[in-house]
Formats: sequence, C-alpha cells, structure tokens
Amino acid sequence: MPKVTIAQNILAANDTIAGEIQQLLAARGIRTINVMSSPGAGKTTLLERTIERLRGQLGIGVIEGDIETSADAERIEAAGAGTVETVQINTRGACHLEAHMIRAALEEIDLTHISLLVIENIGNLVCPSAWKLGEDMRVVVVSTTEGDDKPAKYPQMFATSQVMIVNKLDLLPYVDYNVEKVKRQALAINPHLRIFEVSCRTGAGLDAWCEWLVNDPPP
Amino acid sequence: MPKVTIAQNILAANDTIAGEIQQLLAARGIRTINVMSSPGAGKTTLLERTIERLRGQLGIGVIEGDIETSADAERIEAAGAGTVETVQINTRGACHLEAHMIRAALEEIDLTHISLLVIENIGNLVCPSAWKLGEDMRVVVVSTTEGDDKPAKYPQMFATSQVMIVNKLDLLPYVDYNVEKVKRQALAINPHLRIFEVSCRTGAGLDAWCEWLVNDPPP
Repeated sequence: MPKVTIAQNILAANDTIAGEIQQLLAARGIRTINVMSSPGAGKTTLLERTIERLRGQLGIGVIEGDIETSADAERIEAAGAGTVETVQINTRGACHLEAHMIRAALEEIDLTHISLLVIENIGNLVCPSAWKLGEDMRVVVVSTTEGDDKPAKYPQMFATSQVMIVNKLDLLPYVDYNVEKVKRQALAINPHLRIFEVSCRTGAGLDAWCEWLVNDPPP
Repeated sequence: MPKVTIAQNILAANDTIAGEIQQLLAARGIRTINVMSSPGAGKTTLLERTIERLRGQLGIGVIEGDIETSADAERIEAAGAGTVETVQINTRGACHLEAHMIRAALEEIDLTHISLLVIENIGNLVCPSAWKLGEDMRVVVVSTTEGDDKPAKYPQMFATSQVMIVNKLDLLPYVDYNVEKVKRQALAINPHLRIFEVSCRTGAGLDAWCEWLVNDPPP
C-alpha cells in the first residue's frame, strides 16, 4: 500500500516541522492557538471581537488561512487598527493548513512584537484535525445554526481540541439546537474540553473567553 | 514529485469507476445527484423535505455519507416511510466519498425500484468537489447563516456544481447575509449554475426545487 506509507511520511514530516515551530514560539514566550470550524461558523468574527478586546493588552499576530481571497486578513487588520501583524496564506485548493505554510508565514511576522499568535485554519471540520501546526492549543468553533449533531459526526476534531466555542447564541430562539446535547456529545469524546458559549453579534460570553485566553491557558 | 503523481493516479482510478457507475445508472434510466455543503447547511433536512414531497411519485434511493454515525440514514428512512432504499456509508475519518464506496453501496440497493438516486456527501466545502461519484448533477447547498462569502472562498465547489440551493431563508431577518451577493459571486464562477432559494423549515421554495428535480434536469 504505497499511498498509505507516503501519507504517513507526509504527516511525520509535518509533525517534525510543527515541533520546531512550537519550540521556536515557546522560547519566545508566544502562545499559539489554531482555530478551526465549518465554513461560516464565525472564526473570523470571533477573532475580530477578540482582537478588539485585547489589542491594548498584548501584542497579537494572526495567520489567516483561506483557499482563495485575502478578505479575512483585511477584516483582521481593520479590527486590529494597525496593531496586529497579519499574514494571509492562500492554499489554492488545499483543504487544510500545513506546518511548512506556517513556517513560511512566520518569516513575515516580527516575533519580538507579539505574545499571542492566532492561526485561523481553512473552514473544514475534517482535514485540519490531522495536521499539527506548532500550536499550544486547538480551538474548535461550532455555531447554533449548524445542527446539534456535529461532535458525534466529526469526532476527531473534538477529540484533538482543547477548547470548544459555541457561537451564535443570539440565534437560539430561531433554530432547533440543544446546547446541552452538543456539550454532552463533545465531552463524551473529550472530557477535558474547555467550553465557552458566546455570541459574536451581541458580545455575550466574549469577556470570559478573552480573560481565559490571556490568563489561563497552558503556556 | 512522486506524491503528486500518486494523487493523480488515485483520482484517475476514481474517475474510471465513476464513469462505470454513471453508465450503469444511465442504462437503467436512473438520475443521480451528489449533494454537497458545509457541515450543517441543511443537506439532510433538504432531502427529508424532498423525499416527503416525491415519495409517491417516483422510486428513490439514498446513499448517506458520514464519517461516523447512521443518524442521517435513520432520518431519511423515517422521511421515506419505508419507501426509500437507504444505505449509510461511514468513511471512518475520510473527508469525502469516493466512487468505489458508491459502487459498494449500490450492491445494497435494488436498482429496479428507483428512478432517482441521491448521494449525500460528507459535510465539507472543499474535498468532495475533486471526487466524481458517477452523478449526473452536483448540488451545492449554502445557508444564510454561514456568511455570504462562501462562493469566493471555496470556488471549486461552485465551479463544478450544476445547482446551488440557498437554504435557511427563514433566518434572513436575524443575520447579515446578502442573497444577491452570493448569487452574483456564484454566477461569476459558474454562469450556468441553476439557483433555488428555499427554507426547509417553512417549506418556501421547495415545490419549485422538487418540480425541477423531477422534470427538468439533464438525464
């Protein structure tokens, strides 16, 4: 089965680069999070609201992953009001970010200026979970409009994340979505998952998330 | 670049099987659609509502693709009230269906009983677009809660589809979503795209979709 061997070699090579990135960033005291979700769950909006709250407190770098367009990096730069170092990666078809892409993007960021690095992955609940990027922490974002069966249907994403954010709480009155069911499903897969419930539209829950992000996560 | 060669070989092998499936189904007069979307855009609900409307008019087979669980196949069987031949494929981690999976699933369906075969792909706006399954037509479902930038950010999915369904119209009052912008983006990528706007919750637009599905699509 040569194709399996090659896939394993590619993943092993990726993990080696990811390990080097993690060491580099840890040596500089930079916390790194890898944010993942379905397309449209609200990753970029979460980052906009997070950056608006934190930009005076600490230096932030953002690596934006998209298949095409630089629209998200432009949104992040606007939210940062000139204070956030932002790099856009366009994968031109690839369904996930890989560690070598992060290594290249880091050459564009002045690491002496930041203590938090945020990587926004491609919108995809499947493939990104297999690829380490050198992050300290993985954050999976789900939203109340995408059905309350996602942890059971995409378990690997929840098994490999440390944080789950349930977004779009403001739309709960208009959809059939049981937040408790989602939390139960996710915790059955990963009992250590830290869960935040937020609305990026109203701001509900965002202060708790930001406070935790600055103060509590593992280094 | 051996890994690229192997990827091409895998895709070419897939296309060969897909071609055989398409011939087999065409010879029996069975129309086949491949339904794709982000996780949670409403594929399964669209199929439930479609089957409820059509189950008296024609024989329907459904192949449900999921990484894990048989929850969707159970929903389809309930919607079909015993009239729909349903097969669940669990990919155990794979991010898309492949033609050899469809070939295996077809062995479980009595093809003499059906004239419409619906394949529900894995929830993923990226990878499924590269894999032919023997379908006559690809249907991409987007929803009003996932942001109105999806065609621009995931162009390959829209370039290779024949139909786009905009779902969750009932939630438009509560979200920032410009349907006309999405349609413009999608048509710029693929001017031949047939577009339906629906709400699977209220039923709006579903009769037009079902009438077209039965009467107008290419054989």
